[in-house]
Amino acid sequence: MAKVYVTRRERFNAAHKLWNPKWSEEKNFEIFGKCANENWHGHNYELFVTVKGQPDEDTGCIIDLKLLSVIINERVIDKLDHRNLNLDVPFMQGKMASTENLAVGIWGEIAESIKSHGCELHSVRVHETENNYAEYLGE
Amino acid sequence: MAKVYVTRRERFNAAHKLWNPKWSEEKNFEIFGKCANENWHGHNYELFVTVKGQPDEDTGCIIDLKLLSVIINERVIDKLDHRNLNLDVPFMQGKMASTENLAVGIWGEIAESIKSHGCELHSVRVHETENNYAEYLGE
Amino acid sequence: MAKVYVTRRERFNAAHKLWNPKWSEEKNFEIFGKCANENWHGHNYELFVTVKGQPDEDTGCIIDLKLLSVIINERVIDKLDHRNLNLDVPFMQGKMASTENLAVGIWGEIAESIKSHGCELHSVRVHETENNYAEYLGE
Amino acid sequence: MAKVYVTRRERFNAAHKLWNPKWSEEKNFEIFGKCANENWHGHNYELFVTVKGQPDEDTGCIIDLKLLSVIINERVIDKLDHRNLNLDVPFMQGKMASTENLAVGIWGEIAESIKSHGCELHSVRVHETENNYAEYLGE
Amino acid sequence: MAKVYVTRRERFNAAHKLWNPKWSEEKNFEIFGKCANENWHGHNYELFVTVKGQPDEDTGCIIDLKLLSVIINERVIDKLDHRNLNLDVPFMQGKMASTENLAVGIWGEIAESIKSHGCELHSVRVHETENNYAEYLGE
Amino acid sequence: MAKVYVTRRERFNAAHKLWNPKWSEEKNFEIFGKCANENWHGHNYELFVTVKGQPDEDTGCIIDLKLLSVIINERVIDKLDHRNLNLDVPFMQGKMASTENLAVGIWGEIAESIKSHGCELHSVRVHETENNYAEYLGE
Repeated sequence: MAKVYVTRRERFNAAHKLWNPKWSEEKNFEIFGKCANENWHGHNYELFVTVKGQPDEDTGCIIDLKLLSVIINERVIDKLDHRNLNLDVPFMQGKMASTENLAVGIWGEIAESIKSHGCELHSVRVHETENNYAEYLGE
Repeated sequence: MAKVYVTRRERFNAAHKLWNPKWSEEKNFEIFGKCANENWHGHNYELFVTVKGQPDEDTGCIIDLKLLSVIINERVIDKLDHRNLNLDVPFMQGKMASTENLAVGIWGEIAESIKSHGCELHSVRVHETENNYAEYLGE
Repeated sequence: MAKVYVTRRERFNAAHKLWNPKWSEEKNFEIFGKCANENWHGHNYELFVTVKGQPDEDTGCIIDLKLLSVIINERVIDKLDHRNLNLDVPFMQGKMASTENLAVGIWGEIAESIKSHGCELHSVRVHETENNYAEYLGE
Repeated sequence: MAKVYVTRRERFNAAHKLWNPKWSEEKNFEIFGKCANENWHGHNYELFVTVKGQPDEDTGCIIDLKLLSVIINERVIDKLDHRNLNLDVPFMQGKMASTENLAVGIWGEIAESIKSHGCELHSVRVHETENNYAEYLGE
Repeated sequence: MAKVYVTRRERFNAAHKLWNPKWSEEKNFEIFGKCANENWHGHNYELFVTVKGQPDEDTGCIIDLKLLSVIINERVIDKLDHRNLNLDVPFMQGKMASTENLAVGIWGEIAESIKSHGCELHSVRVHETENNYAEYLGE
Repeated sequence: MAKVYVTRRERFNAAHKLWNPKWSEEKNFEIFGKCANENWHGHNYELFVTVKGQPDEDTGCIIDLKLLSVIINERVIDKLDHRNLNLDVPFMQGKMASTENLAVGIWGEIAESIKSHGCELHSVRVHETENNYAEYLGE
């Protein structure tokens, strides 16, 4: 039976900064430059979630996209959108608010739920700007 | 020798609906929502076909992109563009008109032809909207 | 006081065909080509509504964008999305389902409502594909 | 002599919130919803600056685009990028951090400088998300 | 009767450089920087042509878009695509190969033909990169 | 430990033609069509470089993106941007100026440097137009 990959895009607007509390202000600016600016900056993040599975014969789909959207919204977008990634997001606590860590963190929030609906989570890709994105494949 | 992946984008505008004739109207709307609306809706589909091969020393290319475009247009776009995916498309007959099935169906129409020109079909990706796409890798 | 233009994008997926019932089949195909195909085709339409007004001192906004989105959704998107432009849309009855007529028709559905909220409708722009769009400025 | 409009895009990533200090917390959330969330959110803003002038016979250009970019960067991007629009930006002090006010504020920062180089500022357009933008024409 | 604006996008890939033969090499590099590099560079140009007219009652369109595309292709794209703007393009001879001059030049090639089909040319917009474009309105 | 993929986009504008000096003019035009036109054409190339690694605990990043950008700019963009791919680029000498060869060539210029900073180069993807791109994975 054919295995198909389906991708759903969701978006969130959030504030963050790159700041390591173990380091001096000087070292933070040396390493992170303007990304360490005190009063935050932010992004229009784009999130692409890819799931893998076999198309159901009756629906032609590997997962109901409305359901996939609900899973992503309830489990991650509602926690991230119009929030501060450093201060407000439970699954990012104690971690640097990097795009890499966001991708890994989002994977942890949705992988089980997607599995319980008969699909396999394949990839979480987070675009921070038009020039930068990070992807996690669960390995 | 290096293996390179080359991708060609083509587009088609088509009508469809998600409707399972084995189900009642009630069940169709329960499962598919507005995608089951009677009088069809449609999309600007984007199709990305990726082929894999070794660059030819004389041309620098793994396949003539004009030829790849002709293969895709003659074998799939001409059957899909300005058509109804449920009613008009031979290779979609008897299947739900989902993006997943489109990707698998398009693979079946072009894989042999691409192979006969010395390349391997690697991926068929179909974008239905800016938020949804399906990809088939032939596994 | 400054006058500012604010634009809101909304999207709808619809089926249509270009077909003049006063003409023969032959003439329809001669004039409209594949756009006249019997079983419909469709598009991911993008709608850009631009309103003009003075920023309110207390909000900094010329109109609440959530309200503008509600107006557009209730008055036009709900009538257009996942619908057939030739068969299902009250404000398109008796008109050719062209992008031009869509832009003019949408203007008629929303201009009064926007005015009643203290703004002026400036432009309705409808994108049918990445290559074609129509704009109406109410003149 | 022909008058031509030339547009330059620049980008900035900033944090903000919509919050009127004259209002109660309750009223702020009633009016601005999640845009009033305490710990900020942010955007990848896109700024399009359009200038109008006659092409110089020797250069073919109405303004040196490198110079236009320097003007925009020195006068606005350096003050906005990786900053908090409510706290950090001199020309936004005492104003709501709306897209409308940003467009008007940016106009004020660059109009004179562009004029001194023989061109006329025609439009400042600020995109906050893919769905919302504001434009100011100086009227 | 309503006046509607319709825009058609066409694309061309061309080489050019900014080089004023009346100037020394030194002055050319001082003014144009790397845009004056000897062996040319190039762009994926995007051309947006906007025409204005009244929708025809029988077609719903202000102009047949297939016809508009033919006019643009025959009169400008065929002369520009896969060409060198400095060396190969009759209507750019003796002019600097700037985006401004391209927009004015393209207007001159198509305005009469569009008029002869009952429409008015409203705007020619040429995008050189994602960051720069020029527009000519015929004034 | 998690492995994450990070992608950086850079851009360059270059001229080229497809022309095999071992072939007659006739054969070059037969194979390459207008891509063989004598006086060059050009593109806005987009380059996507993907690296793979483990996020550093102190920074949250697998590589400093500013450093990755410097590597790509110093080693490839400075050699490609506003240049002629057939005449000016050391690492393309003696090769056809195809997108495939560009991707392989760019890989050769940056793989070692990325490795020396603790990451692994995963992919080099070069977009020539909105319809064509080539990707090399180093195999």
